[in-house]
Amino acid sequence: MTTLTPSEKALVPFVSVDNMMKLVHHIGIEPMLRGLADYIEADFRRWELFDKTPRIASHSAEGVIELMPTSDGEVYGFKYVNGHPKNTADGLQTVTAFGLLANVDNGYPVLLSEMTVLTALRTAATSAMVAKYLAPKGADTMAMIGNGAQSEFQSMAMKTICGIKTVRLYDTDPAATAKAARNLSGLGLDVFACKSAEESMEGAQIITTCTADKQYATILTDNMVGAGVHINAIGGDCPGKTELAPAILHRSDIFVEYPEQTRIEGEIQQLAPDHPVTQMWEVINGTAKGRTSPEQITLFDSVGFAIEDFSALRYVRDNINGTNLFIDLDLLADPDDPRDLFGMVQRAAPV
Amino acid sequence: MTTLTPSEKALVPFVSVDNMMKLVHHIGIEPMLRGLADYIEADFRRWELFDKTPRIASHSAEGVIELMPTSDGEVYGFKYVNGHPKNTADGLQTVTAFGLLANVDNGYPVLLSEMTVLTALRTAATSAMVAKYLAPKGADTMAMIGNGAQSEFQSMAMKTICGIKTVRLYDTDPAATAKAARNLSGLGLDVFACKSAEESMEGAQIITTCTADKQYATILTDNMVGAGVHINAIGGDCPGKTELAPAILHRSDIFVEYPEQTRIEGEIQQLAPDHPVTQMWEVINGTAKGRTSPEQITLFDSVGFAIEDFSALRYVRDNINGTNLFIDLDLLADPDDPRDLFGMVQRAAPV
Repeated sequence: MTTLTPSEKALVPFVSVDNMMKLVHHIGIEPMLRGLADYIEADFRRWELFDKTPRIASHSAEGVIELMPTSDGEVYGFKYVNGHPKNTADGLQTVTAFGLLANVDNGYPVLLSEMTVLTALRTAATSAMVAKYLAPKGADTMAMIGNGAQSEFQSMAMKTICGIKTVRLYDTDPAATAKAARNLSGLGLDVFACKSAEESMEGAQIITTCTADKQYATILTDNMVGAGVHINAIGGDCPGKTELAPAILHRSDIFVEYPEQTRIEGEIQQLAPDHPVTQMWEVINGTAKGRTSPEQITLFDSVGFAIEDFSALRYVRDNINGTNLFIDLDLLADPDDPRDLFGMVQRAAPV
Repeated sequence: MTTLTPSEKALVPFVSVDNMMKLVHHIGIEPMLRGLADYIEADFRRWELFDKTPRIASHSAEGVIELMPTSDGEVYGFKYVNGHPKNTADGLQTVTAFGLLANVDNGYPVLLSEMTVLTALRTAATSAMVAKYLAPKGADTMAMIGNGAQSEFQSMAMKTICGIKTVRLYDTDPAATAKAARNLSGLGLDVFACKSAEESMEGAQIITTCTADKQYATILTDNMVGAGVHINAIGGDCPGKTELAPAILHRSDIFVEYPEQTRIEGEIQQLAPDHPVTQMWEVINGTAKGRTSPEQITLFDSVGFAIEDFSALRYVRDNINGTNLFIDLDLLADPDDPRDLFGMVQRAAPV
């Protein structure tokens, strides 16, 4: 029988921004951050079996558009993401994203999802999952330098995954700090708005830097950073964009996601190409050491890697089942006879 | 004012399979094929200004999933496409695809579209646009070898763009030929079902090969091909998949889309890596010669290139304006304050 309504095979579940926000509230932001961290950690454990490639970037004067594909041999995923620092001046997001999962065995997509909200969640979950391995024992205070779109997600992930109790906020724009403090009030953290980066770092065992300028900046200078801290450096994430003074890098043990990508995009673009770094998946697997002493400075030079997006999409796919938080998109042509695409088009003619 | 419904900026027009088929009937298949060919030809003319890269492939035992990005500096586009030859055995398409256009200056997507139907149309439009330059003068008969999903689109494009009056169909599976003949009846072509490839080529000035096996096959042997024909070879389009005997290649003048990709994926993977080929965009620009004599064998070794998809998406974007053949997808988070993504998520909490 010929039918003009798409068959089940042809439909791809789509999670809109609205539904992603509803999913956050359906699960709860803290359980969702923990769930994402668990999925990301599980995929870091099986890092070696993934098809890995540096992201495919299309650069322009205004910014970059990137595709980030990966596959575990059963499921393929990719994320589309842009980075346009000047967008905020036009009231647009610096970063927007969406992603897709597909079956490797037949190539059919199985999930299309917004990833602007999801990327904020997975980035925070990744930072906190890594800090769980690297931060000094008993860390309870985080300095959050850069109070843009990522800052509250970082704060909540560090609370729920690492047990952080106090967040000390600083931004060059006091309005950003006020916004973050307002958003975090009533969520179980002691929140302090600070007037300088130095002040924000008082008593902090974890220092998170997440600023957005596309330029070599020095958010942290050498003399600001004492012994026994974990630096979670998120903002240095593309060529020409760094946040830390090189001297700090030389005093730190540096941990990365995928060295081939981090050496181009991360803080370590400031170092020699053979400067020693440790891959986080090896720390998680137990094949490399994480923090070895309380005095050590550990640095997670985070740039974001395709596997983290893959994990986040897997989490969403597994958690929308049984909810009404997606719609089915008629994205794939699915004629009754696969060779009869033309006939399918003909039969769609208006009568 | 805070609003929970997505703003206009956050919405991306989406063309479903159903709406793409309606668009074909709204425009008419022949005008649409001509329109697509015009857009593709225009983009071939400005080939040099495109950001070009071979497709990014993720191979598995069963098939391949590919991303095909390109940009003209103002608009960025990419296509997701799979190729899984065994899918038909499970009642699935061998190839499914979707694509996206985005603004280069801010990275925001402006169109998401199914591309299974659209790829069939653009592939046919490309073949016919190229044949317009390369086929012998007065060509009126095409042999169509391989009567799968692409065959009727090829036939209609060659009719409307090159003036072909007769199509001679052949497939190893007579049911496929019967299907194509049935679909093409009443559309203004004289259609003949042939019992062998040789029979299909009688009197044909254009020979189109489009078979699907992922293996080195020999659809055309050397002695089958006489002088003064144009071969439109579509099916040899990935490593290990070819359709023509090498001897035919040596007797032909070979025209390609993007040599870097064709040498890996096309018929010319059977030749030395420095075997001379002509880029089609140079023929269209007048900087290289196309057909120079009636006796010549011209061969378009077509593998499909990202710019053709880009042209097709541009055509769809320009032609859905003022129609109701798309829906707006809430694909992009768009908080009132771009730095307040967390606040947007908080405000979406159920009351």
